[in-house]
Amino acid sequence: MARTVNPREHAARRQAIVEVAKACFARKGFHQASTAEICAAAGISPGALFHYFPSKKAIIAAIVEQEGAETAAYFDAAEDGDDLYAEVMGFLDLALELAADGDFASLTLEIAAEAARDPDIGRLAARNDADLRARLEGLLDGAARRGQIDPGLPASEAASCLTMLVDGAFSRVATDPDFRPAEQKGAALLLARRFLRPTHRE
Amino acid sequence: MARTVNPREHAARRQAIVEVAKACFARKGFHQASTAEICAAAGISPGALFHYFPSKKAIIAAIVEQEGAETAAYFDAAEDGDDLYAEVMGFLDLALELAADGDFASLTLEIAAEAARDPDIGRLAARNDADLRARLEGLLDGAARRGQIDPGLPASEAASCLTMLVDGAFSRVATDPDFRPAEQKGAALLLARRFLRPTHRE
Repeated sequence: MARTVNPREHAARRQAIVEVAKACFARKGFHQASTAEICAAAGISPGALFHYFPSKKAIIAAIVEQEGAETAAYFDAAEDGDDLYAEVMGFLDLALELAADGDFASLTLEIAAEAARDPDIGRLAARNDADLRARLEGLLDGAARRGQIDPGLPASEAASCLTMLVDGAFSRVATDPDFRPAEQKGAALLLARRFLRPTHRE
Repeated sequence: MARTVNPREHAARRQAIVEVAKACFARKGFHQASTAEICAAAGISPGALFHYFPSKKAIIAAIVEQEGAETAAYFDAAEDGDDLYAEVMGFLDLALELAADGDFASLTLEIAAEAARDPDIGRLAARNDADLRARLEGLLDGAARRGQIDPGLPASEAASCLTMLVDGAFSRVATDPDFRPAEQKGAALLLARRFLRPTHRE
């Protein structure tokens, strides 16, 4: 009996597995979470999982690739904005919201740890990281060219500073149980605003 | 034959072992570096090491405690300054220099990783972290009271933002081989200056 594969159904199933795996990895870590648990949570058999992902590492790679695609889509939309200063601030606001999301922050740390251990995951994570930085730099450069922020601020250095701030939020969440990124968001956004010196508001 | 112990010599020897161990740990990691290597580098026998440190963990604890003492001494001196804004900027400058120091950055990451694994080291590291943040907040509060920086900036939130920036520098060093904190120092200090709005210069 031939098995017919509906591509849309296959993609939807694959995505459902990714979502379930993200939650499992965030809560238990990549190495502590077993594929059996992922299968149970996704309601499929271990044999069926193999049709979607040949290994746990393939699931991890899919998660990292998907993050990259989501970042690209985010910046595609942001670049269409009229006020690129507002788009930069919107990005920072979202990044600090994500740092405050326990599951997202845990998953980010798991990816960083796995990137240090596994060169393939490392390359994927490094590409995401470089892409994000480049896209943020592009927004800052556009904002400066349009006279929306201080044109004297080199976009590359400004992008580095703002990503340092975001990285710092994720890093503090991991090491300091009393740190609440949501409570620091106002001050962090003020810091960014004063740094960028938007020309049309103050 | 009784062994006479000269306390000053004992302290000097202990300190020499700590220095050698810091270099070994930074290069190989806590778990990869053996006490045999530390002994060889320090020019003492494994039996002699035991007179100074009962275990590798005791060396790690001594390193973390010493960092705490160095931070306290740094801020003791900074608080005596007339220009507390300049002291805050001096601290940031030093922290970003340290992030650019490969050995120091590696050792910092090793301590963070060990703090996550070992509750005793975790408590020591968390205390250092909280002390540093509190001392920086004290400097910022003093600077605001003296009218040296924007008095409308809550010292607690400003301290959080600036430590996020420093944490971010250490975190990026670890994950991005192309990141050069020394090259970002100028922009990061500009960011801090614009954020703090020093009143007596601009």
